[in-house]
Amino acid sequence: MIVKTAAQEMFAPLKNQSFLRACMRQATEHTPVWLMRQAGRYLPEYRATRAKAGSFMGLATNVDYATEVTLQPLERYPLDAAILFSDILTVPDAMGLGLSFAIGEGPRFAHSVRDEAAVARLAVPDMDKLRYVFDAVASIRRALNGRVPLIGFSGSPWTLACYMVEGAGSDDYRQVKTMLYARPDLMHRILTINADAVAAYLNAQIDAGAQAVMIFDSWGGVLADGAFQAFSLAYTARVLGQLKRTHDGAVIPRIVFTKGGGLWLKEMGQLDCDVLGLDWTVNLAHARALLGGRVGGAGKALQGNIDPNVLFANPEQIGAEVGRVLQTFGAPHRAPVDDPDQTGPTHIFNLGHGISQHTPAENVAVLVEAVHSISRNLRRDTQ
Amino acid sequence: MIVKTAAQEMFAPLKNQSFLRACMRQATEHTPVWLMRQAGRYLPEYRATRAKAGSFMGLATNVDYATEVTLQPLERYPLDAAILFSDILTVPDAMGLGLSFAIGEGPRFAHSVRDEAAVARLAVPDMDKLRYVFDAVASIRRALNGRVPLIGFSGSPWTLACYMVEGAGSDDYRQVKTMLYARPDLMHRILTINADAVAAYLNAQIDAGAQAVMIFDSWGGVLADGAFQAFSLAYTARVLGQLKRTHDGAVIPRIVFTKGGGLWLKEMGQLDCDVLGLDWTVNLAHARALLGGRVGGAGKALQGNIDPNVLFANPEQIGAEVGRVLQTFGAPHRAPVDDPDQTGPTHIFNLGHGISQHTPAENVAVLVEAVHSISRNLRRDTQ
Repeated sequence: MIVKTAAQEMFAPLKNQSFLRACMRQATEHTPVWLMRQAGRYLPEYRATRAKAGSFMGLATNVDYATEVTLQPLERYPLDAAILFSDILTVPDAMGLGLSFAIGEGPRFAHSVRDEAAVARLAVPDMDKLRYVFDAVASIRRALNGRVPLIGFSGSPWTLACYMVEGAGSDDYRQVKTMLYARPDLMHRILTINADAVAAYLNAQIDAGAQAVMIFDSWGGVLADGAFQAFSLAYTARVLGQLKRTHDGAVIPRIVFTKGGGLWLKEMGQLDCDVLGLDWTVNLAHARALLGGRVGGAGKALQGNIDPNVLFANPEQIGAEVGRVLQTFGAPHRAPVDDPDQTGPTHIFNLGHGISQHTPAENVAVLVEAVHSISRNLRRDTQ
Repeated sequence: MIVKTAAQEMFAPLKNQSFLRACMRQATEHTPVWLMRQAGRYLPEYRATRAKAGSFMGLATNVDYATEVTLQPLERYPLDAAILFSDILTVPDAMGLGLSFAIGEGPRFAHSVRDEAAVARLAVPDMDKLRYVFDAVASIRRALNGRVPLIGFSGSPWTLACYMVEGAGSDDYRQVKTMLYARPDLMHRILTINADAVAAYLNAQIDAGAQAVMIFDSWGGVLADGAFQAFSLAYTARVLGQLKRTHDGAVIPRIVFTKGGGLWLKEMGQLDCDVLGLDWTVNLAHARALLGGRVGGAGKALQGNIDPNVLFANPEQIGAEVGRVLQTFGAPHRAPVDDPDQTGPTHIFNLGHGISQHTPAENVAVLVEAVHSISRNLRRDTQ
């Protein structure tokens, strides 16, 4: 029994437990759903706040704006979780690399890390430089007022390294892979620092009020077999090994999502995390058989994995595709009345990648409603 | 017994059989090696010919230039196969979509195919519009003079459709996937036409002298599970069903390469092809166990799969990575003296994707030499 601290007393009790229960492989009345990048450019109200803020980093570093945009999708849709509005690259920015977002382009660092001297200068940043993130977490948690849980997040050590070495996004990851193959010693040094920084960063988000944390290994899938295990998975494991398991008496579930990692699911099943995120290339029935675990036993909850481009179809087609994803996962876990917290295979509905900025906002309502209604029906059918 | 025609008499007998034997799962003295995009911008002599030709299409449509650049890498390196110099998008160009290559950008079509009217206008093109390709095949085959076999190729129906609908390369495949999810009828119509066009195109390359053919499903890996099978794999199968099995008495091996297709290897194993190409995310030992077949039985030869970025490391590191890939495939198939054509699991060494234009040309020599020498040693060790 951990005694609750004053900090936790500030936050209202949670009304919608479905996401956190599904993370812990406990039965829920419907399949919980949230969407990667659910606070984002497809929403006109997001674009309005973004315009007020002047720049992406102006938005992300302002506690009030970050709170406002995090809550915007919840005003429109009955989503089952909120996710901190921020960027995966805040940590290397705090290392002094100078993050910026040019209009119409992706992120860019003023200083890329390509040689021994640049690597030698790297260190785990003072978490005080990321205070704006932790303040946003606390502010969002207060604003949520117990409506749904708040997910904190970070880029994975490898994904951060990709941007740090390339200096920006890349088609071929030539610079970072050149370092990996030609100077593995430097790459391991970057990844060690990144892992320790990410762990400190996520722990501070947990302290500030994040009720689950997610590691985005957005670029793990570009690695060769063998290199993935040595340069991505091992450092994700290093992060997980340092994370707080509980905060103020509550278990903090950990989610790991490797885009393009479907070939390594079995190895990812060994990670000390609760949930694995899956992109749309993965067959959910296969992933469930491999990782979902048995009723009453251990396993991973699975999160994903509809193609975000489904949201460009018409409402009936969106409903049909949602049904297909839910059916592929298969019969929902249902717990006996006398043991409502019994574990079993669970699914958290999500996209297989971030939502497109071109998505019609009304189609998101169709998707969320379809997940809730179809998944409720599936529970009735299997009763 | 098929009687040899006059056409085949024109070509000199083949001196290096290693590639074709490995395609048919027959033992070879070394692991044959060729590189996707081996004739390309990383070679200064290629850039010189490209400058003479004025444009990429000027290069691809001129028989003499196409022959010249196809042979350039063979002058430098003891590669075990040549591949026609051309582009995967010649077929939709012949459909009238107007292919061009802007400097520093990828391919672009003047007319993209996004609505019912544009789809209705599509038809299998008159193969005479692709005469320049077949003439190049015959010219290259003559110029090779039996040195190594010549591989013909095409984009897959799905990969062609991606470019036809998007009008160019894409980050998110939003247009083509919108059509796939919202108008699957139109998408199936495009793919049917593409499959029949690709089959006619590859058969004409075979008639002109191609000794093996390869289907590049460069974008199959962007599809969701389920969509891949319905919109990519099914149409690759439709192409294969129409291909000539032999020409002038020689079996014409078929290679299928789906970039990012590692999750669907088992289903790809059902294709009526001889070789499966693999990218670097696939574990070769796993693929061999799944697909390589037994000695004396059926199976697929495997082609791939080193990360092209390995070529940015130093010679010792390149040698070590080549060794790792060969060791991962495992013990080479060796046939008994009294049955030299006995089948067994075979490997054709290649990159997991096209070679980078930034590759130091001397490092390619290191890689090819390492494949030959290490694979010869492996055969000695397992004797």
